[in-house]
Amino acid sequence: MSSTVGQVIKCKAAVAWEAGKPLVIEEVEVAPPQAMEVRVKILFTSLCHTDVYFWEAKGQTPVFPRILGHEAAGIVESVGEGVTDLQPGDHVLPVFTGECKECDHCKSEESNMCSLLRIDPDRGVMIGDGKARFSINGKPIYHFLGTSTFSEYTVVHVGCLAKINPLAPLETVCVLSCGISTGFGATVNVAKPKKGSSVAVFGLGAVGLAAAEGARVSGASRIIGVDLNSDRFEQAKKFGVTEFVNPKDYDRPVQEVIAEMTGGGVDRSVECTGNINAMISAFECVHDGWGVAVLVGVPHKDDVFKTSPVNFLCERTLKGTFYGNYKPRSDIPGVVEKYMNKEMELEKFITHEVPFSEINKAFDLMLRGEGLRCLIRMEH
Amino acid sequence: MSSTVGQVIKCKAAVAWEAGKPLVIEEVEVAPPQAMEVRVKILFTSLCHTDVYFWEAKGQTPVFPRILGHEAAGIVESVGEGVTDLQPGDHVLPVFTGECKECDHCKSEESNMCSLLRIDPDRGVMIGDGKARFSINGKPIYHFLGTSTFSEYTVVHVGCLAKINPLAPLETVCVLSCGISTGFGATVNVAKPKKGSSVAVFGLGAVGLAAAEGARVSGASRIIGVDLNSDRFEQAKKFGVTEFVNPKDYDRPVQEVIAEMTGGGVDRSVECTGNINAMISAFECVHDGWGVAVLVGVPHKDDVFKTSPVNFLCERTLKGTFYGNYKPRSDIPGVVEKYMNKEMELEKFITHEVPFSEINKAFDLMLRGEGLRCLIRMEH
Ligand SMILES: NC(=O)c1ccc[n+]([C@@H]2O[C@H](COP(=O)([O-])OP(=O)(O)OC[C@H]3O[C@@H](n4cnc5c(N)ncnc54)[C@H](O)[C@@H]3O)[C@@H](O)[C@H]2O)c1
Ligand SMILES: NC(=O)c1ccc[n+]([C@@H]2O[C@H](COP(=O)([O-])OP(=O)(O)OC[C@H]3O[C@@H](n4cnc5c(N)ncnc54)[C@H](O)[C@@H]3O)[C@@H](O)[C@H]2O)c1
Ligand SMILES: [Zn+2]
Ligand SMILES: [Zn+2]
Ligand SMILES: [Zn+2]
Ligand SMILES: [Zn+2]
Repeated sequence: MSSTVGQVIKCKAAVAWEAGKPLVIEEVEVAPPQAMEVRVKILFTSLCHTDVYFWEAKGQTPVFPRILGHEAAGIVESVGEGVTDLQPGDHVLPVFTGECKECDHCKSEESNMCSLLRIDPDRGVMIGDGKARFSINGKPIYHFLGTSTFSEYTVVHVGCLAKINPLAPLETVCVLSCGISTGFGATVNVAKPKKGSSVAVFGLGAVGLAAAEGARVSGASRIIGVDLNSDRFEQAKKFGVTEFVNPKDYDRPVQEVIAEMTGGGVDRSVECTGNINAMISAFECVHDGWGVAVLVGVPHKDDVFKTSPVNFLCERTLKGTFYGNYKPRSDIPGVVEKYMNKEMELEKFITHEVPFSEINKAFDLMLRGEGLRCLIRMEH
Repeated sequence: MSSTVGQVIKCKAAVAWEAGKPLVIEEVEVAPPQAMEVRVKILFTSLCHTDVYFWEAKGQTPVFPRILGHEAAGIVESVGEGVTDLQPGDHVLPVFTGECKECDHCKSEESNMCSLLRIDPDRGVMIGDGKARFSINGKPIYHFLGTSTFSEYTVVHVGCLAKINPLAPLETVCVLSCGISTGFGATVNVAKPKKGSSVAVFGLGAVGLAAAEGARVSGASRIIGVDLNSDRFEQAKKFGVTEFVNPKDYDRPVQEVIAEMTGGGVDRSVECTGNINAMISAFECVHDGWGVAVLVGVPHKDDVFKTSPVNFLCERTLKGTFYGNYKPRSDIPGVVEKYMNKEMELEKFITHEVPFSEINKAFDLMLRGEGLRCLIRMEH
């Protein structure tokens, strides 16, 4: 691999030229990593709903042409100036929220919202010099979430890469790069259900089922899955979900249905849909006195969360989280070890696989609500 | 006192006949306590803003004629059937939220929202038989918050009475019956600021200053007081408030002002105003990543809390609390001991005193925003 160090690499990338239009596999030029940057050879990537949102760009700022993708696994090709933590050959997971290890957030025990490297979906360039590392015929192709993993090679800030056990199978731990860590962490790090408690999970995609898995591992005795798509229910049983509610089956708000099922509300809820009404229901369905709701889904830009302040006064708590409150560099290597030690199952989240050339099929599957994660295998 | 046991007591009470009209001192009949009830001779009561709200009845259900009052101290006159925890002569603080010791909330470590005896401002009768114990010429006069302390004698459910150290001065610990416990507990039990942290307090009445006192005791290094009434600021210095912000002095939202003062937001905020805009500001002014806001103020019935869901996603937490999360029977005797051991100051909250016959002066003072608590001395 040393032959490419310091050189522009020409490789294939799936470019989103316009909102909602199929990605096009193009030959792109990938500039060498600059200071504090790392060029990564992507081996596997998978599709998360956040990619779909910013591809549709409904109610989000459109930034095109752009290389999407943020859930992936790869190997370091070369490193820029000042990078000491990583070297060519290291196995890494790129993460959309970074960890500079120096800001107030990185030093705080509670936050993973690094001031330098926090998620910014509107930014399409590297933070170092405000430029894109991707180009076609000299014209920039923008980045996405600092990761842009729908490319054979990508350039990522060193703070957005978790160095993991080189024995871990990249085609599996790939899903820890976003969705599964997000959902699992939202439950175990933020909602923190007690043994024997009840947990509602809104949205039974990969993120929601990872949240359910977190509830199961925490010893929750009732896990109520809520989804508008009843096809999700059969699959969800494998993830410990014990009961199902489709809001479409009722003529009253789902929070009332859940309150009736549970004698006043669930102990914890985790919202993994991105739908503002589901966010409000997820909050209002927790038990007064002690209930805690956690928002995970990415809302539309102009969505407004509305509720009666009395719902808070009655001692309900509402929180939100990015990436399950995990710090990518400090925490994710340990989550990979959890998988290696069989304390966590990942295979069941990967329901489909396509070669990179057929990446648009992954979008079709997600839009149809079929399956959980679709693994995209790069074809170097 | 035994001569009155089992008898109707005729005594003076301040009756609110109509919303917003001065209270009238009337001779009322107070029926003997029924099962699980206690008749209390009130010696001191003080005015809390919650009394004013339900007297004004703007945006609340009007229940009149009514005997208001819920912050008080007294002595047990007689007890009804089944009451074993209290006996005549015991010193008690009535509390607007009760503790049955048997429901899920009472058994939970987190909640003080007893299913049987939780706050219900629309109820004007006793829960046992759905009747009022007060009457004038046989016509019922309604209760308020299960306490109705603007009367020389009142009837209260045993679960709404904290039995306290008989050596505690009733004219001082009176304010622990609502406001001071509420504000202090909101900080120390719910917001839980760490040593050296920054805390914003919205509303510098007695509840807010008790919240500030809680922050001071917790070792907060910056306590930012926010009030529309700048006259509050001089007084607030005695309660450890280090900086002041009057939203009227700025042409941008106060949450932005606070974010600028603190490099991104405060670590904790406690809202003690009852104003919906202050509630929203109190939430939005906490730091992303770790900030926690606590709502204490009583909103109007139709108020809606509105914010962008992204404010939650960025790892801010919003909670609310009644009575500072204290359980009245289990916790308040200990809070009184804190005062007895000089770990807590109460005198500075009591800025005015009037005899019972001049109770309307206490309303005037609060409406003018003058002083903190006005003690009302009963004249048996
Ligand atoms: N906060 C973070 O760090 C983070 C990270 C990854 C993903 N996300 C977000 O999490 C959400 C879930 O991602 P995913 O990849 O699992 O998506 P997905 O499309 O696979 O699953 C979402 C599920 O929610 C269901 N749903 C949609 N609206 C609903 C409603 N109103 N009520 C009930 N169910 C509803 C859908 O039917 C679907 O099954 C997305 O909003 C995504 O952007 C957030
Ligand atoms: N949750 C509970 O258990 C509980 C218990 C007691 C009191 N309360 C409520 O707490 C609140 C405070 O009670 P209090 O007795 O201290 O009242 P108070 O009238 O003495 O003090 C309220 C203060 O808030 C200020 N204020 C009003 N609107 C404001 C705004 N928009 N921004 C900034 N400051 C504003 C006022 O100027 C005043 O100084 C009331 O809403 C009361 O009903 C709640
Ligand atoms: Zn994602
Ligand atoms: Zn950082
Ligand atoms: Zn009060
Ligand atoms: Zn109870």
